[in-house]
Amino acid sequence: MADIGTIVAEITAEMRGATERGRVADYIPPLACVSRDRFGIAVVMADGTLHLGGNAEEPFSIQSVSKVFSLTLALGMVGDALWSRVGREPSGSAFNSIVQLETEHGIPRNPFINAGAIVVADVLLASGTPAEAIAGVLRFVRSLAGDETITIDARVAAAEQATGYRNMALANYMRAFGNLQHPVEQALGVYFHQCALAMSCRQLAMAGRYLAHDGRDPATGRCIVTPQRARRIAALMMLCGHYDNSGEFAFRVGLPGKSGVGGGILAVVPGTASIAVWSPGLTPKGNSQLGALALERLAAATGWSVFEACSGL
Amino acid sequence: MADIGTIVAEITAEMRGATERGRVADYIPPLACVSRDRFGIAVVMADGTLHLGGNAEEPFSIQSVSKVFSLTLALGMVGDALWSRVGREPSGSAFNSIVQLETEHGIPRNPFINAGAIVVADVLLASGTPAEAIAGVLRFVRSLAGDETITIDARVAAAEQATGYRNMALANYMRAFGNLQHPVEQALGVYFHQCALAMSCRQLAMAGRYLAHDGRDPATGRCIVTPQRARRIAALMMLCGHYDNSGEFAFRVGLPGKSGVGGGILAVVPGTASIAVWSPGLTPKGNSQLGALALERLAAATGWSVFEACSGL
Amino acid sequence: MADIGTIVAEITAEMRGATERGRVADYIPPLACVSRDRFGIAVVMADGTLHLGGNAEEPFSIQSVSKVFSLTLALGMVGDALWSRVGREPSGSAFNSIVQLETEHGIPRNPFINAGAIVVADVLLASGTPAEAIAGVLRFVRSLAGDETITIDARVAAAEQATGYRNMALANYMRAFGNLQHPVEQALGVYFHQCALAMSCRQLAMAGRYLAHDGRDPATGRCIVTPQRARRIAALMMLCGHYDNSGEFAFRVGLPGKSGVGGGILAVVPGTASIAVWSPGLTPKGNSQLGALALERLAAATGWSVFEACSGL
Amino acid sequence: MADIGTIVAEITAEMRGATERGRVADYIPPLACVSRDRFGIAVVMADGTLHLGGNAEEPFSIQSVSKVFSLTLALGMVGDALWSRVGREPSGSAFNSIVQLETEHGIPRNPFINAGAIVVADVLLASGTPAEAIAGVLRFVRSLAGDETITIDARVAAAEQATGYRNMALANYMRAFGNLQHPVEQALGVYFHQCALAMSCRQLAMAGRYLAHDGRDPATGRCIVTPQRARRIAALMMLCGHYDNSGEFAFRVGLPGKSGVGGGILAVVPGTASIAVWSPGLTPKGNSQLGALALERLAAATGWSVFEACSGL
Repeated sequence: MADIGTIVAEITAEMRGATERGRVADYIPPLACVSRDRFGIAVVMADGTLHLGGNAEEPFSIQSVSKVFSLTLALGMVGDALWSRVGREPSGSAFNSIVQLETEHGIPRNPFINAGAIVVADVLLASGTPAEAIAGVLRFVRSLAGDETITIDARVAAAEQATGYRNMALANYMRAFGNLQHPVEQALGVYFHQCALAMSCRQLAMAGRYLAHDGRDPATGRCIVTPQRARRIAALMMLCGHYDNSGEFAFRVGLPGKSGVGGGILAVVPGTASIAVWSPGLTPKGNSQLGALALERLAAATGWSVFEACSGL
Repeated sequence: MADIGTIVAEITAEMRGATERGRVADYIPPLACVSRDRFGIAVVMADGTLHLGGNAEEPFSIQSVSKVFSLTLALGMVGDALWSRVGREPSGSAFNSIVQLETEHGIPRNPFINAGAIVVADVLLASGTPAEAIAGVLRFVRSLAGDETITIDARVAAAEQATGYRNMALANYMRAFGNLQHPVEQALGVYFHQCALAMSCRQLAMAGRYLAHDGRDPATGRCIVTPQRARRIAALMMLCGHYDNSGEFAFRVGLPGKSGVGGGILAVVPGTASIAVWSPGLTPKGNSQLGALALERLAAATGWSVFEACSGL
Repeated sequence: MADIGTIVAEITAEMRGATERGRVADYIPPLACVSRDRFGIAVVMADGTLHLGGNAEEPFSIQSVSKVFSLTLALGMVGDALWSRVGREPSGSAFNSIVQLETEHGIPRNPFINAGAIVVADVLLASGTPAEAIAGVLRFVRSLAGDETITIDARVAAAEQATGYRNMALANYMRAFGNLQHPVEQALGVYFHQCALAMSCRQLAMAGRYLAHDGRDPATGRCIVTPQRARRIAALMMLCGHYDNSGEFAFRVGLPGKSGVGGGILAVVPGTASIAVWSPGLTPKGNSQLGALALERLAAATGWSVFEACSGL
Repeated sequence: MADIGTIVAEITAEMRGATERGRVADYIPPLACVSRDRFGIAVVMADGTLHLGGNAEEPFSIQSVSKVFSLTLALGMVGDALWSRVGREPSGSAFNSIVQLETEHGIPRNPFINAGAIVVADVLLASGTPAEAIAGVLRFVRSLAGDETITIDARVAAAEQATGYRNMALANYMRAFGNLQHPVEQALGVYFHQCALAMSCRQLAMAGRYLAHDGRDPATGRCIVTPQRARRIAALMMLCGHYDNSGEFAFRVGLPGKSGVGGGILAVVPGTASIAVWSPGLTPKGNSQLGALALERLAAATGWSVFEACSGL
């Protein structure tokens, strides 16, 4: 196997030249104006070695990737009680589908579809006002990444709030079933702001390290979550992290991952690495086209896969 | 960590005494008459060491666990061309749901729901008559397990054929969309017979070894499938192996697994072990109640999980 | 045939004594506190003769019956252009289902399910502010009934507005598809107020006369709508007026009708009579239990049915 | 109003020249080879006067129009007990949809969608062998039309049987829920043969007279069904006779009608007329394009509508 740095450089070069780059999300102006040319990758190894490629230092809107962090926080607050309000199964539907909520009485299938993440945001409001809950998410992500410069892009949050009718529909629908405990506006306020987190690939890969290392920050040894919880969050990422394209991602990449409509994907190789990729062009199913391709290349070149016989028979 | 043999013995003892054992499938007499008291487990390690517990040598109807083997065979015959006829996504629905077929034009979501496995059976018919295709499946499974005594229970196949109206509906429905190339009766004949494979936990664990070892039989070094294909089949097991309970299984057990309505589950620990459990009592979602619990206990006691940081930070 | 007055009196007596009266809607307090004992009926013949029974003079919340009047107004404003924004087919689903909106891109199946009526309310906003649109509905209904004492129950409208999460979900969902042109709050404001119209059976039967008489008020000869439009509104009532119980109502009663969750039903016998019944106890599908039974009795006793061979062979 | 004969002649002339004629059903050869140029109409008045236009004497495959006659026969055999096995509501779905059967446990929504008509065919098998049941349907239709020359087109029935996978799926699916009492092949045999009835517009209009005249044959005074049953069948035609286009037909034509994929439509004007039209070109929803247009023209020109104020205010 070539060394990781070389592999990352080769992948970056390939993605630079790629012509089929997907379509940039255009439902809000701050996302629509991001250049389709961007591609970034960051791989942080267990020992802290960092491999960067392309626009790895440029912040982007992490959008739904944030759902991993808000879920972690909410589980810290209410533990397994969360699972009475949100399921743990793939939905078989698009990220913003409302159909399943009707037959399943306002309980979203999992915490990574929009409806589920709104429930998680509602849980976070137990910690205080919307502003306090949002500050808590930001503080947590900064702490995970060890980087106090991470911010929330207020323009993105405002644009989501101004046009997010479908999320308002989801929230109101769950409220009708009693599955939101705070005013709809507050839960959505937290949700829209967490999605507006702006992070670079480097920051995102750093923030995701605990998921690759049994819940522990390998740099400091600090325990973020228990090993069991880390594995369970990874399991949810594997099964539900790419909406109705999760099977495809598991099939091609073989790693737990979570994508966002901003074009970012966080993926982890248990015991080995935390990886963030970013390219704003999306597939029709709403996942980063080059991001997923880069991860497929990386997995193929390194042999990284949770299904690999790591003892190397 | 206690040694595997001790863990297996403890789990067997716990399952012996368990009072909540689920409900035995009763839709056909040969399954209904199996005693709910049965529990078996077999763990075969990379080096061939075998740990058995309970009724590990008693054959049972593997039912849908067989879909892993028929998929492997079909991929060997037609390769990735298979994926134009069956998807790779969790369905979000029950094993025998027909709803998704209507909106998705007769293409089943994945090869492990009934509809998908019937397509796979149709592919196997390219090898000859129904009898020849069935013989091919039996030969393959015997070869994988290294055990020529494995048989197909003709009574089970006959009972399925006599009452399998829902599968006949699925098959006819796909035929209407042109997604079966052979007569419905023939595809169902192959399907019902493969499901009627009778195997013990020991035999099943032996047969599953290639999935734990990058496609290779670790005893002989023989390559059954490529490493990539082995990992991809494992990915499908992880995401779709327990129907609409796959998320729960991944969350609790963290291993690729495939369940059957006969109460068997095959699970693999990449690089480490192949495991078969059996207990005929089912949960309401149709998976072995004690089988899944035993695997959860085993994963917890050993730390086995594809999401574990195996480097042991 | 006994005379209508006698029939009405007999039906009233039967309903008085009925023990299975259904369940009063309890989702908002102002509806929940209505006595289940109430029953009223009003039949106004083509010549203006009025037959009243029970609590025919007591105002109740007409709720979804109002959708007939708002549809009439909206068609007067935009004509057939309305039908690009709302369909004309039975939905096969409950009154507040959101499922169909997802697959049909925010276009409700018909103007009598909640989603469709919210679109109609949005159309009415073309006439001015929400207050003006609401005043327009009230003025229209007063004029139809020839009764300036009809009012809107502000407590009911306020209670709907405070708890109507499901309608807010529907409205936001359609807004996401661009099928509302005014702010969600305004469309819902109009909708909640029109549903809060308080009318007695007598007033309601009077207001519905134009639908029984080819669009004309038989008392004054004034043309409210064209004959074609009157028949078409009646057709929509027949096919969609009782949500997913419309088939049952057509089967048992055989007349165009529109029900409301307040327990009222308006039905028309073309050329012959306009009928309003009211009893607040509802069937599980949300229609007045005794109201529908009274209409079935009335139709049986009089032979009134749009499917009757009126030439009396 | 012009006289009916003149109106029928004018409509026939218009349809002759129509250029948008829809698309002939091509799923079986015997239907596909019918010329798109055909158009026929037959109107039989209460007094027996017959107005014919175009190819009114040419037999065509009545297909689903036959469901009206088989329903009438089945109700005669088992009465209202039928309604425990099939519903009375519009489905909101296509004629051959299987989705609703899954959530509603094998009970079809109404007797006019394919699934419902297969249940009705299963009921008819209580009368004897499939051949006897088919003979019974033929005898009944001949008797209604007063025409012993009506036949079943064996080629059509054979072609349906050879390719009707979707109907086989529906039948097997209902069998799985216990909602068929005879072998699937037998129920389908009856169903396919009744659909293969070949009748001309004249014969079909004659056969439908009892539905326009309170259950009585106006020529002989013979009672076919009670007035109540005749009205109820007409109500079902009105609500469900054109599948998911029933609302549109009611809106435009305002009469109870039943369409077939062979391009025929039977419609009745209670007390006044029985009408059959035929033109093989279909709309995308599977109803005769010119047939429906001809009925719309006829209704507009005559004022015929069940929603008309027939007292002529």
